Amino acid sequence: MKDCLFCKIIKKELPSKIVYEDDNFFAFNDINPVAPIHILIIPKKHIPSVNSLTASDKELIGELFLVAQKIARAEKATETGYRLTFNVGENAGQTVEHLHLHLLGGKKLLWS
Amino acid sequence: MKDCLFCKIIKKELPSKIVYEDDNFFAFNDINPVAPIHILIIPKKHIPSVNSLTASDKELIGELFLVAQKIARAEKATETGYRLTFNVGENAGQTVEHLHLHLLGGKKLLWS
Repeated sequence: MKDCLFCKIIKKELPSKIVYEDDNFFAFNDINPVAPIHILIIPKKHIPSVNSLTASDKELIGELFLVAQKIARAEKATETGYRLTFNVGENAGQTVEHLHLHLLGGKKLLWS
Repeated sequence: MKDCLFCKIIKKELPSKIVYEDDNFFAFNDINPVAPIHILIIPKKHIPSVNSLTASDKELIGELFLVAQKIARAEKATETGYRLTFNVGENAGQTVEHLHLHLLGGKKLLWS
């Protein structure tokens, strides 16, 4: 998507602190971290949000969580615990319309 | 799993407020809700956490998010926004060792 911030980050037209990259996924540090570990893991395919997922995205989403597990392990977040979150829409504070999974860790996380 | 709380809920050996059920998934209201909509969506297969996912679970996890989308739509959470979260381990406050996806909605959600 031409005007999508995250598509530009994937294409390296915009800078990011890259954590992981493969053929289908890209991960980078959140610029407004709310935890010591705060990484965004995104599919390279432009999918606006969870609301837009279709049956054809099933395998991609499954794979995304295996990538998240791999990154959590590399960041040693698996030892102390971590959170994986999709925010969808306004009430959840989704600010970029490109599906992104938050990986939060490195501290005791609040819950509400 | 014999001693798993959520396996017992799936088998209806323990009561729950059921929101959704199909061959592979089960969803019910969280007994300690932190938002007006707070539903747990779980695979019937006993998987302890995101850390235990393997490549063979890919399709199941993809399907779980299509189920989550369907429930969010039925609960009208898609209109105002919602959050989908896996808590993994201690720092995230995972209390039951059976993979469960939190669906939170119906209010402006905090972020930290």
